[in-house]
Order: sequence, then C-alpha cells, then structure tokens
Amino acid sequence: KYGEMDGEDQVGIITGLAYTDFGGDILTIEAVRMPGKGRMQVTGNLKDVMKESVQAAHAYVRSRATHFGIEPPLFERTDVAIHVPEGATPKDGPSAGVAMATAIVSVLTGVPIRRDIAMTGEVTLRGRVLPIGGLKEKLLAALRSGVKTVLIPQENVKDLQDIPENVKAGLEIIPVGSVDEVLGHALVSPLTPIEWTEPAPLLRPTDDAGDDQVLTH
Amino acid sequence: KYGEMDGEDQVGIITGLAYTDFGGDILTIEAVRMPGKGRMQVTGNLKDVMKESVQAAHAYVRSRATHFGIEPPLFERTDVAIHVPEGATPKDGPSAGVAMATAIVSVLTGVPIRRDIAMTGEVTLRGRVLPIGGLKEKLLAALRSGVKTVLIPQENVKDLQDIPENVKAGLEIIPVGSVDEVLGHALVSPLTPIEWTEPAPLLRPTDDAGDDQVLTH
Amino acid sequence: KYGEMDGEDQVGIITGLAYTDFGGDILTIEAVRMPGKGRMQVTGNLKDVMKESVQAAHAYVRSRATHFGIEPPLFERTDVAIHVPEGATPKDGPSAGVAMATAIVSVLTGVPIRRDIAMTGEVTLRGRVLPIGGLKEKLLAALRSGVKTVLIPQENVKDLQDIPENVKAGLEIIPVGSVDEVLGHALVSPLTPIEWTEPAPLLRPTDDAGDDQVLTH
Amino acid sequence: KYGEMDGEDQVGIITGLAYTDFGGDILTIEAVRMPGKGRMQVTGNLKDVMKESVQAAHAYVRSRATHFGIEPPLFERTDVAIHVPEGATPKDGPSAGVAMATAIVSVLTGVPIRRDIAMTGEVTLRGRVLPIGGLKEKLLAALRSGVKTVLIPQENVKDLQDIPENVKAGLEIIPVGSVDEVLGHALVSPLTPIEWTEPAPLLRPTDDAGDDQVLTH
Amino acid sequence: KYGEMDGEDQVGIITGLAYTDFGGDILTIEAVRMPGKGRMQVTGNLKDVMKESVQAAHAYVRSRATHFGIEPPLFERTDVAIHVPEGATPKDGPSAGVAMATAIVSVLTGVPIRRDIAMTGEVTLRGRVLPIGGLKEKLLAALRSGVKTVLIPQENVKDLQDIPENVKAGLEIIPVGSVDEVLGHALVSPLTPIEWTEPAPLLRPTDDAGDDQVLTH
Amino acid sequence: KYGEMDGEDQVGIITGLAYTDFGGDILTIEAVRMPGKGRMQVTGNLKDVMKESVQAAHAYVRSRATHFGIEPPLFERTDVAIHVPEGATPKDGPSAGVAMATAIVSVLTGVPIRRDIAMTGEVTLRGRVLPIGGLKEKLLAALRSGVKTVLIPQENVKDLQDIPENVKAGLEIIPVGSVDEVLGHALVSPLTPIEWTEPAPLLRPTDDAGDDQVLTH
Ligand SMILES: [Ca+2]
Ligand SMILES: [Ca+2]
Ligand SMILES: [Ca+2]
Ligand SMILES: [Ca+2]
Ligand SMILES: [Ca+2]
Ligand SMILES: [Ca+2]
Ligand SMILES: [Ca+2]
Ligand SMILES: [Ca+2]
Ligand SMILES: [Ca+2]
Ligand SMILES: [Ca+2]
Ligand SMILES: [Ca+2]
Ligand SMILES: [Ca+2]
Repeated sequence: KYGEMDGEDQVGIITGLAYTDFGGDILTIEAVRMPGKGRMQVTGNLKDVMKESVQAAHAYVRSRATHFGIEPPLFERTDVAIHVPEGATPKDGPSAGVAMATAIVSVLTGVPIRRDIAMTGEVTLRGRVLPIGGLKEKLLAALRSGVKTVLIPQENVKDLQDIPENVKAGLEIIPVGSVDEVLGHALVSPLTPIEWTEPAPLLRPTDDAGDDQVLTH
Repeated sequence: KYGEMDGEDQVGIITGLAYTDFGGDILTIEAVRMPGKGRMQVTGNLKDVMKESVQAAHAYVRSRATHFGIEPPLFERTDVAIHVPEGATPKDGPSAGVAMATAIVSVLTGVPIRRDIAMTGEVTLRGRVLPIGGLKEKLLAALRSGVKTVLIPQENVKDLQDIPENVKAGLEIIPVGSVDEVLGHALVSPLTPIEWTEPAPLLRPTDDAGDDQVLTH
Repeated sequence: KYGEMDGEDQVGIITGLAYTDFGGDILTIEAVRMPGKGRMQVTGNLKDVMKESVQAAHAYVRSRATHFGIEPPLFERTDVAIHVPEGATPKDGPSAGVAMATAIVSVLTGVPIRRDIAMTGEVTLRGRVLPIGGLKEKLLAALRSGVKTVLIPQENVKDLQDIPENVKAGLEIIPVGSVDEVLGHALVSPLTPIEWTEPAPLLRPTDDAGDDQVLTH
Repeated sequence: KYGEMDGEDQVGIITGLAYTDFGGDILTIEAVRMPGKGRMQVTGNLKDVMKESVQAAHAYVRSRATHFGIEPPLFERTDVAIHVPEGATPKDGPSAGVAMATAIVSVLTGVPIRRDIAMTGEVTLRGRVLPIGGLKEKLLAALRSGVKTVLIPQENVKDLQDIPENVKAGLEIIPVGSVDEVLGHALVSPLTPIEWTEPAPLLRPTDDAGDDQVLTH
Repeated sequence: KYGEMDGEDQVGIITGLAYTDFGGDILTIEAVRMPGKGRMQVTGNLKDVMKESVQAAHAYVRSRATHFGIEPPLFERTDVAIHVPEGATPKDGPSAGVAMATAIVSVLTGVPIRRDIAMTGEVTLRGRVLPIGGLKEKLLAALRSGVKTVLIPQENVKDLQDIPENVKAGLEIIPVGSVDEVLGHALVSPLTPIEWTEPAPLLRPTDDAGDDQVLTH
Repeated sequence: KYGEMDGEDQVGIITGLAYTDFGGDILTIEAVRMPGKGRMQVTGNLKDVMKESVQAAHAYVRSRATHFGIEPPLFERTDVAIHVPEGATPKDGPSAGVAMATAIVSVLTGVPIRRDIAMTGEVTLRGRVLPIGGLKEKLLAALRSGVKTVLIPQENVKDLQDIPENVKAGLEIIPVGSVDEVLGHALVSPLTPIEWTEPAPLLRPTDDAGDDQVLTH
C-alpha cells in the first residue's frame, strides 16, 4: 500500500516525516533527473517555506558538489524534479530539508536510498541539521508505516525522554548533526569525493587582436 | 455528441474522470505536439493542483523517456500543449495524473489511445498510481458516457464493494499500480524501449589553447 | 459604424458573438502578424478563460500547421497579436475559440475572412467545436449588426427550436462540428495542405571530434 | 507652463485628452527611442486598459511598418519608452490609443508632431478609430490648454450637437476614422511607404552537410 | 551623521527631498554601476510610482545618451543599481525624478555631484522638470540638513511667496525647467556631448549566399 | 547547540542580530557560491525589506569588487545563495545589511569570518553603515549566545548609555561607520585590492566589412 515502505531501495525516493493538527504522517519525496538546462521543478502542493527548503537543499548540494562526487557541470545539463505525492494535501515547513538534500544527492549520484529509513530535520546551507517540532507524532507515524530507522536532529535528542518506550523499542533512532552523517546512514553505498578545477573563464574574443584585458594583483 | 466517445482511437486524446459536488463527469484531455523549444502549455481553466499534476506527469515521462521509446532530445525541440475542454468549468485535483501522463506519452510516441477507455489515478514521479476519491460517481459517469473499460488505482479495489452491481457488470474495471500497466491497457500498440547515451558535454572553447579543465577522481 | 460589418473581406478580422447580462453583442476580433520570434500578444481586456481560449486556438493551429498550408518555421519568426476592441469592456468565456482559431489561420495564410459571417463556439485542441450558451441572444445581435451567415456548434442545433422565426429567416445558420468546416465557410478561398519534413536536430558540435553521441534501438 | 502647449513641434510628444470625475484634462504623452532589443517600457501610473492600448497601438504600427516607412528590423534593435507625466495620477481607459500610435510612429520615423493639436480615440489593430466618452469635457480641456485643432473619432460627430458654440468656434474639430487620417493631420510632414522583402529564414546549419530539410508543396 | 551632508562630492550620490505626513525629510539616493548586461536594480522600499520615476529617468538618459557624453553601448554592458537607504521606510511619488536622472548620469559619466545641493522635481521623458507638492516642508528639511543649494521646479516659483524669509535667506533656491539646467548646477564639471553613429544592423547570415534581403524605397 | 557559536571560523557564515516583539535573537546568515551564471538565490522566509537589503549588499560588493580583491568576471560565472535558517520564522528589516555584505565578500574571496563576532547595521550602496533599532535586545541576545565582539553602527553609540553595565562588560562593542571597517574586524585576514581594466566591448561583426561604427568625441 502507498504509505508503507516500497519493496526495494531506489534512487531518489525517500521518506520524510510530517506533523499536522491530525498527528504525524510519512511524506514520500520523489526526485528524478532529466537531460536539461539546470532547471528545478517542484510540485505536490508545497507551500513557500517547504519550497524554499528545496531551494536551500539544492544550493547546498551544488556548493558541495565535488564533496559528493558530482562533477559541477552536471548541474548545467540536468533538470531535477521533486514531487511530494498526494497532491491534494498542502505541505509546508522546513523540516523536510534533510530529506530533500538526500533525494537530490541520490538522483545526481545514482546511489539508492535505503528503503526502510525515514528522516526529519531542517537543513542549513552548510549541511547542518536543525531541530524540528512534533517529534513524537513523527516517530509514531514512522513506526506505523514500517520504517526501521529514523534519523532525527541531534538537538532533538532531549525530546526523546517524552517518547513512549514501545516506540523507542520499535525503531532505531539515530541522532544526526550534519547532512554527511545523514548520507552515511541513508545511502546504500558511500560517496567518493572528486577533485575539480574550474575551467578558466571563456573570453570569447571575436577577433585575434582586441584582447586588451589587464589584470594586475 | 461531445461527452461521448469519439469514433476512433486518436493520438493524444484520453478520457479522464472527474468528481464534483454535482456527481461524476468525464473529462476529455487533449494533447498535441509542435516543433518548438521544450515549452509546455496548459489550458482549460485548470487550478494549481491539476496544473502541478501535469508538470509532474511531464517530468515522469521525461525522466523515463527511453523506457517509452522517446529520444531525450525530442523534449528540447518540441512544444507540448495540454487542454481540457469546457473552458468555462474550473478543474482541480491530482486524480487526472495518469491520464495526463498517458496523453503526453501518446503525443510524443505517436501511438494512439484506445477510444473506449477511461482512467483515474494520481501519478507519482516514479510512475506509481495513487488512490483517488469519488470512485462510484466516476464509474457511473464512465458508464453513462459509453466507456467500456476503466482503469482505477490498485488501492481503490477495496472501494469496489460499494459499487452497484449493474455498474460493475457494464464496465471492465481494471486495477492498475503503475503507469506502465496503464500504458499497456490504454495504448493501441506496445512501446519499444531504446538505449540512449547522453552526448559528452560541449565545452565550447573559443581558442585552441585555454582548455585547462582538470578532473581527477 | 463600428459594430456593423466592414465594407470588404479582410485578413485577420472576424466577427464573434458575445452574451452578457445585457443581451447579445457582436465581438470584432482582430489579428495581425509581424516579423518576430513566435511571441503572442493578446489585448482588449480579456479575462483568463478567453485568454486561454486564444492560447488553445494557437496551439491547435500550430500543431496542424501543414494541414492549413503553413510552414512550421513561420511560427518561430512571426509574432501574432490578437486584439478585441472596446478595451473598456471586460470579455471572458471560451465561446470565441473558433473565431480566434479562424483569425489566426487567416493572418498566417493571408487568406481573407468573409465579412458578412459571424461565429460562436468553443474550440478543442483537435479542432472540434463545442456548444455554447446564449444562442438566442447571440443570433439576435448578429441579425441587428447586418451579419448574413452565422456558424454555430453542431450540438447547439437542438436550441434552434427556441429561436424566433424572423431571426431564423433573416440569417443563414450553419451548424459546424470542426474548425475545418468553419474555415470552409469563413475563408474566401480554400487552404492547400503542404508536406513538411522536420529538419534533423542540430547538434552544434564545437570541434570536429567530440561527436560521441550514440543511439541504439 | 506644463499643461500648455510646448513652443515647438517635437518628435514623440503628443497631447491626448482625458476625462475624469473632475472634468477633462489634457494628457501629455511622451515617447523616446533608444538602441535596444525591441523592448517596450510604459510608465506614468497607467492602469491595465491603458497599458493594453499602448501594446495594441505598438502591434498595429509594427504590423504596418512599411506603410509608415519603417524598416521592420528597426523594431528588433530599438527600445521604445512611453511615459505619461504627472506620475502621481493614475490613468486608464483605451481612448488614448490613437495618440499612442501617433507617438510611436513619430519616434520611429523621426517626423515631429504638430504642437497645437490634440486627439482622442480608441485604436484597433487595423488602425480604425473607435468612439470615446466625455467628448464635451475633453474639448473644454483642449480649449483651456491652448490647443488649436482636435481630432475626434468619426463616430463621435453625432455628439458635437451637445458642445457649446464657443468651444466649437475656438477649436478646429476634425473627425477621423483611421490612424492614417490622424497621421495626415498630426505629423508635420507626410510619411513615405517603403517596400520590404522579409529575408529568407536563417537555417543555421552547423556543418556543411546536415541540411536535410525537405519542403514539398 | 547620516542625514547630513557627506564630506566630499561623490559620483552617484545625490540628495532628494521628500514630503510626508510628518513633514519634510531629505532622501539620499545612491547609484552605482557594475560590469553587466543592461540590468537595472532598484531597492530601498520604493513603491510603484517612485519605481516608475526611476524607469522613466533611465529611459530619458538612455535616449539622450550622446548628449551627456555617454556611448550608447555602455548601457548594454553595464548594470546600474539605485538604492534609497533607510529601507524600513516606504517611499513613493514622482518628485525624486530629477534626482534619479542626475544620479544615473553621474554614475555613467563618472562626474561627481556637488555634495551641498538638494533637488526636487518630477522629470519627463524629454527632460522637463514638473512641479511638486510640499515645497515648504522640503525646503525646511533641506535647511535643517545643511544643504546650501536647492533646485526646485520652475513652476513652483509661485509657491515661494509662502516660504518663511529665514528659509529663503538660508538657502540658495534655484528654479530649473530642464534636466540640462539641473545637471549644470549639480555636477562638479560640465558634460561634453559626443557624436555616435549607430552601427549597421548585423545580419548574421550563416552562409555566404543566402542574403536575399531586398529593400526598396 | 545551534544558536551558539560554531567551533571554527568559516567562509560565508556570519551572525546577525534580530529584534522582535519577543526580544532579541541571533540570526545565522549563510552564504555559499557555486559555478553558475551570476544568479542570486535568497531563502529562509525573508520578507521584502530584508530581501532588498541582500540585493543592495550584493550590488555594493559588485560595484566595489576590485577594492575587495574580486575579479569582476567572477560575478558572471558564479551563483551565490544566501540562506537564513529557521525557515519557519519570517524575518524582515534592513538591519542585517552589513552582515549580508560581509557574507557575500567572504564567499567570493574565500576569506573566513571570525566565529565569535556578531554585527548589526543597515548598509548603503556606498558601504556606509546606518543606525538600527533594538540595540539593547540585540546586545543581550549576543551575550546569551556566546558572542565576544559586536559591531554596531557608529550612529548607535549614543544608545549605549541605556545598555546595562554587565552587558557592556561582557562584550567588546565596536562602533563602525563603513563596510570596510566591518570587514577589517570580521574577516580573519585582510583583503588585497586588485587592479582591473574592463575588456574592450566585443563588437561581434559577422563579416569583415560592415563595421561602419563611428565615434567622435
Ligand atoms: Ca517534515
Ligand atoms: Ca498520507
Ligand atoms: Ca479526475
Ligand atoms: Ca461535461
Ligand atoms: Ca463569444
Ligand atoms: Ca459593442
Ligand atoms: Ca484619453
Ligand atoms: Ca493635468
Ligand atoms: Ca521627493
Ligand atoms: Ca530620514
Ligand atoms: Ca538584524
Ligand atoms: Ca533562534
């Protein structure tokens, strides 16, 4: 059933956790890549704060591309689409940021995401994981949905004392402080950083003379 | 009469199913392609959630293009227009997603869609079919309109117990879980996947020296 | 007087029919073409549904260009402007669709439109003509304005029984089911379809080697 | 004083006539051209209907460029700005259309506009002049401001019977039916139409082979 | 202190005068230029009418570029930013137009603006200076801020009779009718007009034949 | 804990100070750079005035690029993203301007920002620092968060008399009047200005003749 875990680890599919007035819920996040021009498409009835969390996650991944093993020019010839199904339901808030970042890294590297993991946490442009609200409801929703492992922000560890014992017994709860830690837990294989030297700027002179550019330090 | 089935199978025309306060209705969805630049035009008084369902369906088809036998560069030299007639009526919701995806695949491959089929279902970026509401009203509308076969989401099978027997007798109701299954039923001939190797990135150096790009793994 | 028929058949000028709380009215629709870049400009205080009807009519014409004798590249080097005068009056609704399509075909082919004809009907992306409301008021307005012939949607024939006899006597009322039928009646000379083979995609390699694109079926 | 006639005939400056709850007023309209890319800038607190009247006037002039002696490529390398001073006052309505068209023709041809003339009238895409409201108030404003000649729409002639005799005695009132007539009265010298053959489309092949485009009538 | 005069004449910095419900205030306007693509950036919580006054001032300067000694292509390779500090305060109205025009001329020519001068006046596309409101409050604000010279619109001279004698004694008040007069007073050195012949349009033929463009007068 | 100082000096991370109805707070501002096209992305639920403060700060840095040791073409091949975490909280106001400017300089030069410093101040396009409100609350928030040094606008020195002695004892409070002073305190190493001569404009003639451009001073 949709809303339970899929049968295999997949590239670009990840389980986030949402918290509403009606309790917690899991939030499947999907990312795909296509030949393109660096465009980003975000759908699924996401409101402004969640849309911005996708933009920030995307900037984070782009700015650290080589660290994740992604050649920077890939961003200019690839479009990425993010969709959060159940399009009739509005979604908002920054707490899906780490899931967005993980989905983007997964589609750009081709490394699948563990199917039995869920995560929650705001992400910063430096890849730090910030605390979220509604931890109890999110963990309950994860448990109900068959999730085995949940990544939570390090700063939410203090809230674990309010979580029922059966929930804590039924889930492996891993506190994380950075996207690097998140990826270490969520991806099925580790990433290999690359080195990359930005090509020299193209000057496009239109004739052979004319290059009177002077740069003196 | 418009609102009944057309006389022949056509490329890019498909019957969706809508559900409003006044009952069910069929929803003719039209797609055409034109030489262009990869632009997408959506008309027919579609509200935001339905517009996003078109965008997501389009991204799904682009990301799986070769699987459907579509050469990826086609997307860059082709414009696609989607129109849902009866422009005076606002339309919303994600449940026409599978129909949108099917219409897009049909116009891009040139394979016609069976004229006596209708379908309902939200689509995800991975081509999964998600459940919808108003199944009874939609099936009644399909029956009234001369539809022979209706594709419904696998997860809506449980709702068939509430459907009157005469409706179930008058329609072939086929549960589907993926867009691949949808296409297998809806297109008049099967698609042939192709292999495609993305061309190497164009570096556009403007002189013969100057190519000091270095990439080391 | 403006609001009566012009003295001669003209390219890109057509008479639509509108229906408001104050009765019927004729709606002069003007189209011009200019050297350009495929842009479309729509003015005259048109609201969203009517604007979309122009977009859909334009997509229909583009997707069937060769059928109308239009070379597809013309769309990329030509701008088209549509204006509906009496800019102080807001206009809405889809029922001017066939008139919009006819105006666009006329300016792109250079074939004039009969000056004594008026028309009403929503148009689909396949060129079908859908029924409209306010038939009586529209026919009365046509009669008042000196129109000789009115094209109405096939599906509105059933509404002719409510039209006063003097109106039916004063007008030639022709039911139409498709844009092709509309053009046959409205244009002063028939269109000649052309054949057109889309040029192969331009690959723009920047050096003589470098073309390592591989496509295998 | 601003609001009275300038001391000499100028390119791109024209006097329109406005009608508000507080009576009539003259409306100075200014146009300038600059090396550019075909952009149009409209300022001066113009509301949507007046903005559209500028767009429509611009399309009219572009579509008839050679008739006015303007080489069509000029539109692609020239920006035009239109400004209606007294930016604190909102302005709306279509009745400045003929003035806008005249200003655009003047800046693109370089032919000055007579300084002692004013005009009012909606313009269509074919250059017809449509009737306007507030004729009396507009003529009074023209008289107060030192205007010698006023161009009014042909269809407003019937309203002249309500105009006080002293106003009609103080102004030369000229009815006009088309922009051509307007230009004949307003420009200080006549325009010379040119002939222009659109260059063949540029096919931009990137290699010497590759031109497999086929067109068969 | 900010809000008093800076210690030296600077390029692109100018003092405008504002008038609010709470009295007059000075309005520092800053302009800078950067290598770019002809973009204009306007910040500082400016509302629509003031934003348009910047656009109109910019168009005026562009259309008269050579008169000010500016080579027209400079506009295409330069971005200009305008900022009005104290971003928390909304600003509106057209009366800063002459200051905007002066700031733009200053940054594009590199000629500094006299530090002890302030100005107020709407500007037209022809460089005329239109009258403004709140003259008394603006002059009081200028006096308080250490301004020595204030440029006011010629048409506001009649309002000087209502200005207290001590204000008129403490300020050199200079009526101006045109931007040229404004620049003569405000810039520290005079501008030298240049002559410029627009280059012939580039036809970009892609092969040696193919140039079948015909122009006949 | 987030909201306390990070363990090391970092490029592009800076601590601003905010003032709300609930008191003061620190505001972490993050900037990253990526290969790109000169685009700027701003996220973190920033309202219009704060967004404009980022734009103005960016224009300031671009216009003074060489002064900071930044080669101007870098702006055209680099995208910069700014994010202010805690995306659920709306942020507004101009007082983070100096922090924005410092973050942008840091990411473009690669020079880290001192981790134990915080700052508040509006910035002008000339790099002046303007006064802000809520000084007391901001200083209290800085002290609580472990900040050692706070840069405040020179014009806020007069407000220091209202600050409790323990706050003034616990913080090094440095008044600053310009962004240059800010950078001197906040960056871990000084910047080295460079000289840069803008390359001659590219004329892109498409044939060898045709260059009839004439410029005469
Ligand atoms: Ca969440
Ligand atoms: Ca759910
Ligand atoms: Ca539906
Ligand atoms: Ca229906
Ligand atoms: Ca109509
Ligand atoms: Ca009418
Ligand atoms: Ca008017
Ligand atoms: Ca006035
Ligand atoms: Ca002002
Ligand atoms: Ca102030
Ligand atoms: Ca702040
Ligand atoms: Ca906080």
